[in-house]
Amino acid sequence: MSEAVQTLDGWYCLHDFRKIDWTSWKQLSEAERNEAVQEFEHMLNNWHVVEEGEKGSHAFYSIVGQKADLMFMILRPTMDELNEVETELNKTTLADFFIPAYSYVSVVELSSYLGKDDGSDPYENPYVRSRLYPNLPKSKYFCFYPMDKRRQGNDNWYMLSMEERRDFMRSHGEIGRKYAGKVKQIITGSVGFDDWEWGVSLFSDDVLQFKKLVYEMRFDEVSARFGEFGSFFVGNLLDNDKFEKMMEI
Amino acid sequence: MSEAVQTLDGWYCLHDFRKIDWTSWKQLSEAERNEAVQEFEHMLNNWHVVEEGEKGSHAFYSIVGQKADLMFMILRPTMDELNEVETELNKTTLADFFIPAYSYVSVVELSSYLGKDDGSDPYENPYVRSRLYPNLPKSKYFCFYPMDKRRQGNDNWYMLSMEERRDFMRSHGEIGRKYAGKVKQIITGSVGFDDWEWGVSLFSDDVLQFKKLVYEMRFDEVSARFGEFGSFFVGNLLDNDKFEKMMEI
Amino acid sequence: MSEAVQTLDGWYCLHDFRKIDWTSWKQLSEAERNEAVQEFEHMLNNWHVVEEGEKGSHAFYSIVGQKADLMFMILRPTMDELNEVETELNKTTLADFFIPAYSYVSVVELSSYLGKDDGSDPYENPYVRSRLYPNLPKSKYFCFYPMDKRRQGNDNWYMLSMEERRDFMRSHGEIGRKYAGKVKQIITGSVGFDDWEWGVSLFSDDVLQFKKLVYEMRFDEVSARFGEFGSFFVGNLLDNDKFEKMMEI
Amino acid sequence: MSEAVQTLDGWYCLHDFRKIDWTSWKQLSEAERNEAVQEFEHMLNNWHVVEEGEKGSHAFYSIVGQKADLMFMILRPTMDELNEVETELNKTTLADFFIPAYSYVSVVELSSYLGKDDGSDPYENPYVRSRLYPNLPKSKYFCFYPMDKRRQGNDNWYMLSMEERRDFMRSHGEIGRKYAGKVKQIITGSVGFDDWEWGVSLFSDDVLQFKKLVYEMRFDEVSARFGEFGSFFVGNLLDNDKFEKMMEI
Amino acid sequence: MSEAVQTLDGWYCLHDFRKIDWTSWKQLSEAERNEAVQEFEHMLNNWHVVEEGEKGSHAFYSIVGQKADLMFMILRPTMDELNEVETELNKTTLADFFIPAYSYVSVVELSSYLGKDDGSDPYENPYVRSRLYPNLPKSKYFCFYPMDKRRQGNDNWYMLSMEERRDFMRSHGEIGRKYAGKVKQIITGSVGFDDWEWGVSLFSDDVLQFKKLVYEMRFDEVSARFGEFGSFFVGNLLDNDKFEKMMEI
Repeated sequence: MSEAVQTLDGWYCLHDFRKIDWTSWKQLSEAERNEAVQEFEHMLNNWHVVEEGEKGSHAFYSIVGQKADLMFMILRPTMDELNEVETELNKTTLADFFIPAYSYVSVVELSSYLGKDDGSDPYENPYVRSRLYPNLPKSKYFCFYPMDKRRQGNDNWYMLSMEERRDFMRSHGEIGRKYAGKVKQIITGSVGFDDWEWGVSLFSDDVLQFKKLVYEMRFDEVSARFGEFGSFFVGNLLDNDKFEKMMEI
Repeated sequence: MSEAVQTLDGWYCLHDFRKIDWTSWKQLSEAERNEAVQEFEHMLNNWHVVEEGEKGSHAFYSIVGQKADLMFMILRPTMDELNEVETELNKTTLADFFIPAYSYVSVVELSSYLGKDDGSDPYENPYVRSRLYPNLPKSKYFCFYPMDKRRQGNDNWYMLSMEERRDFMRSHGEIGRKYAGKVKQIITGSVGFDDWEWGVSLFSDDVLQFKKLVYEMRFDEVSARFGEFGSFFVGNLLDNDKFEKMMEI
Repeated sequence: MSEAVQTLDGWYCLHDFRKIDWTSWKQLSEAERNEAVQEFEHMLNNWHVVEEGEKGSHAFYSIVGQKADLMFMILRPTMDELNEVETELNKTTLADFFIPAYSYVSVVELSSYLGKDDGSDPYENPYVRSRLYPNLPKSKYFCFYPMDKRRQGNDNWYMLSMEERRDFMRSHGEIGRKYAGKVKQIITGSVGFDDWEWGVSLFSDDVLQFKKLVYEMRFDEVSARFGEFGSFFVGNLLDNDKFEKMMEI
Repeated sequence: MSEAVQTLDGWYCLHDFRKIDWTSWKQLSEAERNEAVQEFEHMLNNWHVVEEGEKGSHAFYSIVGQKADLMFMILRPTMDELNEVETELNKTTLADFFIPAYSYVSVVELSSYLGKDDGSDPYENPYVRSRLYPNLPKSKYFCFYPMDKRRQGNDNWYMLSMEERRDFMRSHGEIGRKYAGKVKQIITGSVGFDDWEWGVSLFSDDVLQFKKLVYEMRFDEVSARFGEFGSFFVGNLLDNDKFEKMMEI
Repeated sequence: MSEAVQTLDGWYCLHDFRKIDWTSWKQLSEAERNEAVQEFEHMLNNWHVVEEGEKGSHAFYSIVGQKADLMFMILRPTMDELNEVETELNKTTLADFFIPAYSYVSVVELSSYLGKDDGSDPYENPYVRSRLYPNLPKSKYFCFYPMDKRRQGNDNWYMLSMEERRDFMRSHGEIGRKYAGKVKQIITGSVGFDDWEWGVSLFSDDVLQFKKLVYEMRFDEVSARFGEFGSFFVGNLLDNDKFEKMMEI
């Protein structure tokens, strides 16, 4: 048996992707549409209050292409609160027009492959805390994809020794550092929670950096031999103004 | 031909996952909604009577993410009763708003890999009985996933000898024991009943233990080389109060 | 090129699985529901007349879990009659509430792996005829799954010699014989007719025997190395009384 | 790089499979149904005129099982005309009840694996022309399936030399010739047009010959090692009388 | 770690495939249908103005078979504008009848496998610019498919050295050049943006050239060993006249 890596786990995370049912939405009157948007923005404002109180965070983006039109990424301290936020969203009037398209349940995760253990409680370390309980950036662009480590014939990640895995991840981390300042990356773990092992959320003000980063990593042996990837979603930041304009008929 | 392991089989088991059709639900009047919830809770109360009479058991959880909103795990002594409970559920008013999302048919199973045969009838052993006919715990969190043992090239579980399989399962069991008191695990067998070979149901008061347990097991050779996993579902316990609050518009 | 095994082919076979649209069904009046059930039972009675005339046979079971609620297994002498029965079923009022869920088109098949050729016409042999043109049993439980023989790397069934395949099938047959009297098995061939190569229909008065039989066979090399399996369906016998009770709101 | 085989290409081909929406169809009055059927048969008659003028051909079959209820196989000289026929079909009243189930876009193809090149223009050869621009037979039964040549590890068709491929195809052709007079086979190529590389359409007055032919071929090394198969569809010939009877409520 | 190839990236690209909901479309009055078509053509005219201003380009084709009826390929300078065009399209009346069928998000890409670096800024090179910011041709026929480079066992593209990959791509490019003047090919990269790594869009006045090109390339080692392909779509050019005729009932 290979030694399992330890993880630090922070806020629980729901990625909630929706398609807009434009045909039904157009059948509402302008007054009904305005009321529905205002009710929804009231909920978003409540989420901002939670964020300001450092009891969670969220991101709201439009998604390009037919896989989804909107994406909510929501962080909360407990799985219970995550479920409550999801139910609250589903009870809004707008949710009748925001058809579920894809979702992902996970928890913010830091792996100990690269860290050193000095005996202190990492959950008390301010830098670690800022990464486990992050304030999601308001970058212009967003990218999400889930992934697995492959378990297949000679390319079986979970049969490698801790040392082999640490070496692979070190090279991987070096690519990531090249993009520091250009792309912010949040890794969430989903083993036992959802169908893939990790979710990767990327934020950037230059959408092309997502392509460069993911493509460069694909040549790294840990991705080339062991990476299995799910669907990719890419989108643009929404604020109240852009959201209202999007929903305007 | 490799020797097949013997199993002990207990109550039949239906996992029934549903999505809530919120849009239609909101169109009911408050009186209609209350009546539907009360009718449903009447059925749940009948299930509790069965449970108290030790003629079955059940669990009721909300599920996080879009794969499902609710999950019923129902145990009964016969496949006929399982079918009747399913039909009874489908005939309730609430079922019109609880859209089928996923289900799993199986039977509580104990494998004899680790047991010793002292010649007595295991079905008379009180400890064995408590595991074959369990009273499902009311833990705060629930996790379910179906799984197969791989049959592929050099990683073919069913081509291993009984001794090899027993050794693999022993190491697996040791990980499980580390989580004793933190996670309760119920294995149900579904060969001949549903599309995977086993269903794994986990109960815990600490949702993070699901992730730790499944992740640690993934490094165990029996999972690393032979485990194939289906969808993972995770959720929160529902009692009447929480259920009523969830359905309240 | 490997020598192809010869098969004897009997009645054509349609497995027709349906989900019940309970929400729409509940909207009918009791009188409308009764009329629809009576019309349907009239068709079932006609099928019984065909069965008594030895011009075909059929089975009718409820299915546990969400994959389907009902299953019709229909045997007829020609593909044309099979199509007519399917169309007749679709034209009933009840069919508006019996939503297609899965189907399988095949023909009852006996393979010659184990038989001996004494020069006589096997289609005149009464025992062979009773297996090619069977009267489906009214067992309490039913199980269906489709399967393929694998064609992959070193596990390619169709690259084996006739002798190798015959040896594999002989061991397989021995397991089957252990279940004689407990499980009745009908093999239907679907190469050229449907998406898998065979359909397996099992009948028993003890539902647990399905699990024991399929699990024991999985350790047999022919399944371990060459068996690929589709969805499994399991269910309970329906007669007019149980069907009427099931459809009663 | 391996040498690519040359193909001769004839009429463009659309296989259009539909499910009948019986529930909606029953809601029409008998007069509305008759009118819709007559309108549709008017279109079919126009197609017959095209066929008589040798500007195309078509086949019309009912399909057994839930994958589809009807199948149109349409041959036309250009991709534009194929698209027009498809749009014409979609604009009929009956098309509102003929729900798209599956389709396949291809072109009638003859491969040069087995032919000899005598320097003349094959497109002027009457025998070749009769195969590239065929008049589809009115056989009692029809079978369709799409297929690929495998590109996997040691079983990579496209890494074989022209000579190896020719030898494989010769053995394949010999099986086909055994069925001459029993099964008519039309191969259509779909590389660049649809999701598989070829479509195989079989016509016979004995439906069992489809099973015998496809099963025998499966033991041929070219299928055993290199054949990947999609869904199989099987059905019965429809003429106006049978079609009217099928649509009659 | 293998060296990643550099790419030049041009306009962002959305392929948007739609199915027509003919049944609902027929229920409109002729006046309503005309108005909807005119509104849509107004949007198309605005897109032409963008194209004339060299701020983007687009293509509009009908698609043969049931996978889609229409395809819009839209090029814009930013991901934001791409999203706006998509939303604008969704807000038209016709979009209520143009049901999403498939989409693809990517960016026009030139790989440096074959180019030489003379130190100058390639984005200033007029030839490079004409390929990164292309005016899409109005060819009679269109073909689209997404693709990946395989990462599997011994056929792992991303484990090859830069030199090996360059050699493979050179042979690939030679086939492409044989089709110069017959087929125009636009490669768009989608790593980090959508589920495959590249999208291939082909334009030609001879639809058969798509089949010849893709089939010939399949025998090239880079495709034979490393190419994984998604769905193929093929279609016919639409101008306002042909579009109006298509939508006419």
